[in-house]
Amino acid sequence: MISAPLFSSLPATITWENDSLSILDQTRLPRETIIENVTTAEQVWRAIHELRVRGAPAIGVAAAYGLCVAMRASLHLPIHEFRAALAQQAAYIDSARPTAVNLSWSLKRMLQAAQACDANDSAALLNALIAEAVAVHAEDQALCDGIGEHGLPLITPGCGVLTHCNAGALATTGLGTATAPIYKAHGEGLTFRVYADETRPLLQGARLTAYELQQAGVDVTLITDSMAASIMAQELVDVVIVGTDRVAANGDFANKIGTLGLAIVARHFNIPFYVACPSSTLDLHTATGRDIVIEERHDDEITHLYGERVAPANMKVRNPAFDVTPNHLVTGFITERGIVQKPFDTNLAALFAMEGDAA
Amino acid sequence: MISAPLFSSLPATITWENDSLSILDQTRLPRETIIENVTTAEQVWRAIHELRVRGAPAIGVAAAYGLCVAMRASLHLPIHEFRAALAQQAAYIDSARPTAVNLSWSLKRMLQAAQACDANDSAALLNALIAEAVAVHAEDQALCDGIGEHGLPLITPGCGVLTHCNAGALATTGLGTATAPIYKAHGEGLTFRVYADETRPLLQGARLTAYELQQAGVDVTLITDSMAASIMAQELVDVVIVGTDRVAANGDFANKIGTLGLAIVARHFNIPFYVACPSSTLDLHTATGRDIVIEERHDDEITHLYGERVAPANMKVRNPAFDVTPNHLVTGFITERGIVQKPFDTNLAALFAMEGDAA
Repeated sequence: MISAPLFSSLPATITWENDSLSILDQTRLPRETIIENVTTAEQVWRAIHELRVRGAPAIGVAAAYGLCVAMRASLHLPIHEFRAALAQQAAYIDSARPTAVNLSWSLKRMLQAAQACDANDSAALLNALIAEAVAVHAEDQALCDGIGEHGLPLITPGCGVLTHCNAGALATTGLGTATAPIYKAHGEGLTFRVYADETRPLLQGARLTAYELQQAGVDVTLITDSMAASIMAQELVDVVIVGTDRVAANGDFANKIGTLGLAIVARHFNIPFYVACPSSTLDLHTATGRDIVIEERHDDEITHLYGERVAPANMKVRNPAFDVTPNHLVTGFITERGIVQKPFDTNLAALFAMEGDAA
Repeated sequence: MISAPLFSSLPATITWENDSLSILDQTRLPRETIIENVTTAEQVWRAIHELRVRGAPAIGVAAAYGLCVAMRASLHLPIHEFRAALAQQAAYIDSARPTAVNLSWSLKRMLQAAQACDANDSAALLNALIAEAVAVHAEDQALCDGIGEHGLPLITPGCGVLTHCNAGALATTGLGTATAPIYKAHGEGLTFRVYADETRPLLQGARLTAYELQQAGVDVTLITDSMAASIMAQELVDVVIVGTDRVAANGDFANKIGTLGLAIVARHFNIPFYVACPSSTLDLHTATGRDIVIEERHDDEITHLYGERVAPANMKVRNPAFDVTPNHLVTGFITERGIVQKPFDTNLAALFAMEGDAA
């Protein structure tokens, strides 16, 4: 079974060992590293709902294993009742985060595996489900691994890498996406520096990226988002690598707020700017960045910090969760199949056309 | 006596009314607006030491009035003893913030006024001191006013203005520096929007700029520093106006961390970028920005928020308080004598050469 992270020092978001599911409680990070054993459907639901496990790929894997855990209570049922219970439990787990695409995708895949399985006893069907969950897990790790391999040459001895938000191991079950080349280079014994933007308002950089890179022994320095230009002006950054939530067919892409400014500043200083892009985030049906709708989040993410009000009452606030960076500011996309260079419209389509059509 | 702020809705940092000194406690902002009456030397010292009054110009004015307040307890002394006590009290108040240039400058000026005064009774000398403090106060207000007048044409009906940190009324006793054109335009009834960067790590934008603009009735929207590029990409910003801590002879300037990134992004979007620059911040003896030393501040400003640790323990941090923006990214300097355009080296020297030599 899959259990050990690719680096033993890296925090494992999800562990499946001796048919037992454990989840790292990310809501307690960076102050406490608490691994929770998850044994019931309710615990699975709660872990996803309360963001103890987060990041699209990690949620997908948690849901797949979670469904297996949930079905254990139904093992005594005859196969037809077991199958009915399976549909119920999948719907229940799916309700934990209604807008998480990977959650639905993963559970749908598990149900399809069950349909394709002609087992006539519940134990055999559960074994097939576990095998499918392990496959989902392994594919996620392989995808991170591929991005890491292809991005590895971007990191050179003594260089400085800057990243934003958390497109890290904590969002996946492997090496992360933007962090994958970093972990690969670290694994090869390269000496280099990473700068992690804290990423206001929700501080994923400070809470998560700084944590996981520090845990893995990477030389990481935390800065505020506003310091990136100053660090670049001091020639401390040789490459920027960020993640993405969605890449349009022309190479415009959406990512955590602050990415656009970072791309502009990197271009000003002629610093290469790469986007770690698993094929799952490529949306060939979205023509350009103008077609990407940006979620606006609650004011109190900005007006309050840990319950303390830091802005005047009734303050007018803008809080877009993401921004869109135009393709001309991107040096390349690091995918699991290789680095995609300009022109992005033809090169992305060439590499992923078949998957794009099915997306 | 000087008492009312130029706009009655603007928070008065310092009020001198009926020979009585009041200070707005800025450490309680934005949650509470508390005006403290200051009646003893110890209270003056504490108000400056504990940052209840902050901002170089405001500190200078507080010290001048504060010295008058402190000397009231010595009015019964004969003139020679009164003069000796004056030197002692000035040294005491000067110790409240050892590195605040305006504090020393203001107290030195008060002592020079005392030396120039041939009064032979203590009450007459105190009156002369009060007159000098009122002059210091009026000069600060006039300087803000001049910047406001010259910057006013930059703000057009319906436009969007973006500012960073607090170069505002709260740092002065008048309209502020970067905010002066904003208050002038608002006073003339113009309708326009202001975006205030929150300004990590110390959040002066959220705590102070957002507060004072909201109090004055200006249409102000708070954003994180990382949102500026996104707001500019949406064509919501027509001009950026920031303050400065020091301007070098060639027009390179130091300001709160984040200013450099803002200038680069503004240039990317062809948005004019102005620096409000009272002549007191122009340092013609500093040739270029490379000669400006940047203060690095404590890690915990970034790793902790209101006592809560948000980053891993023992996290490596960079925390430069300021960055240096090169002259070529500046559209113009708004000074009390007019807007200085390129070439900055000759034009700044032409306007301020005499003061520069004396600086």
